[in-house]
Amino acid sequence: MPKRKRFWVAFQGERGAYSEIAARRFFGKDIELLPCETFDLVFKSVEKQKANAGMVPIENSQAGCIHQNYDLLLKHRLRIVGELNLRVEHNLIGHPGATLRSIRTIFSHPQALMQCQGNTSKLKDSMKDLKIVAAYDTAGSVKKIQEEKLLNAAAIASDLAARTYGMKILKRGIQDNPENFTRFLVLRKTQTPPPNANKTSLVFSVKNVPGALFRSLSAFALRDIDLYKIESRPLHGKPWEYFFYIDFAGSPEEPGCRNALAHLGEIATFLKVLGSYPRDARKL
Amino acid sequence: MPKRKRFWVAFQGERGAYSEIAARRFFGKDIELLPCETFDLVFKSVEKQKANAGMVPIENSQAGCIHQNYDLLLKHRLRIVGELNLRVEHNLIGHPGATLRSIRTIFSHPQALMQCQGNTSKLKDSMKDLKIVAAYDTAGSVKKIQEEKLLNAAAIASDLAARTYGMKILKRGIQDNPENFTRFLVLRKTQTPPPNANKTSLVFSVKNVPGALFRSLSAFALRDIDLYKIESRPLHGKPWEYFFYIDFAGSPEEPGCRNALAHLGEIATFLKVLGSYPRDARKL
Repeated sequence: MPKRKRFWVAFQGERGAYSEIAARRFFGKDIELLPCETFDLVFKSVEKQKANAGMVPIENSQAGCIHQNYDLLLKHRLRIVGELNLRVEHNLIGHPGATLRSIRTIFSHPQALMQCQGNTSKLKDSMKDLKIVAAYDTAGSVKKIQEEKLLNAAAIASDLAARTYGMKILKRGIQDNPENFTRFLVLRKTQTPPPNANKTSLVFSVKNVPGALFRSLSAFALRDIDLYKIESRPLHGKPWEYFFYIDFAGSPEEPGCRNALAHLGEIATFLKVLGSYPRDARKL
Repeated sequence: MPKRKRFWVAFQGERGAYSEIAARRFFGKDIELLPCETFDLVFKSVEKQKANAGMVPIENSQAGCIHQNYDLLLKHRLRIVGELNLRVEHNLIGHPGATLRSIRTIFSHPQALMQCQGNTSKLKDSMKDLKIVAAYDTAGSVKKIQEEKLLNAAAIASDLAARTYGMKILKRGIQDNPENFTRFLVLRKTQTPPPNANKTSLVFSVKNVPGALFRSLSAFALRDIDLYKIESRPLHGKPWEYFFYIDFAGSPEEPGCRNALAHLGEIATFLKVLGSYPRDARKL
């Protein structure tokens, strides 16, 4: 049997990152992983075909939109071909030889530290001199504990990170809000949407006159097209102009949606379709 | 002359917090300050009339909306009576006896650490073993350096925090993005908007049918009322329902806006006016 071509997925962070969980859940286990230091490098890796696809977080149920990745979607010529809503479960992870009582320092990415602030404060009450230290990465903090054989430190990261580096979960699910979801986007260098696409993301701007947004939305409303999301974002340096990010039901393969996009194109001063893809109906 | 009644302003964080800068800039220097540990306590202090007003951040140009404070606006019976757009300048602050070379640890709130991640990484390259430690508060980290006379630690905080605790600015403006603005809201226990109100914030939800948002926006568009901001937010536990946050030009004192609100009330399943107030036209 001929050897199957390997499929590379780029993501930001170290092996064991939440994006790796999203990549495995979306593409299955038979993939090669390309960890990147920054989101910009994820986009570049896919653009330069070092990776077949990229997996990036775009929105968190607590922290809101990751504007940086919207900016990168505007800048790069990639398409969204899929989405995945992942429940984020943070764990306190230590060396196999460590116990909860031996921990004096907790490392993690500032975003994860924020999402666990309530629970780590409680730990602080019972563990004198506990230090909460910000690190570059969640999974990278687990890697550090393994490499440096730290018995008095723990990391906040995914259970995949614990398994990846052979470390132990000291406390499972330590995020303050159990309903913590992150929406991930799958990016590819293609112009063709997947055949079962039923959701489309786009960004547009309009002249700042009263009713401009209303006229723009008429393109969808007059064709009974449902909106999943809308968000305005001020254009820096242009205090009276805005970008609008919209997700709507359907794909340009359908005549109604194609007409809606043409209609919106007449009204908007700028319009970019970011991609059409199958909707992940699990809640965010 | 009779003694003037003191005016108390509640805010989250320690003395020297960015919210204190916002409070002083909005109300002038002749105010009393009530630092609170949490945002929830800020709302409660105003509701229970322990403070005359509250000052809370609602939106940052980099991090997006502070959803927690939108939730608190929904929960409490307070009104937005003003807004202030503040340019956030983070500084590296140390003990008067410290130098940049003596620093081994940097403390700050995770949000501030994230906004300075690029610059602190550069410092890490030149300063071996530099630790970035997450703390409860920006100004609180400066207080800690003063109280514990730490000569080998610095905090990331406002210049007001440096002045408040008599500490020294080691490096000014260390945020990665110089265009870092936070929008603050002024809250009071009143139902009467200030006389010069020209901007209104509200939250509403509609039945999830195609065109529902479009019909809602018609209330504004048909009356030539300009929108400043729109954001949809999924309702937790109700995967097909959304809240919409809208800021529009005008106040219910104007008949057009009053009619628009009545019109929106016919369409919406839920509607709450969060307040009308004079717009801060400085860019966010």
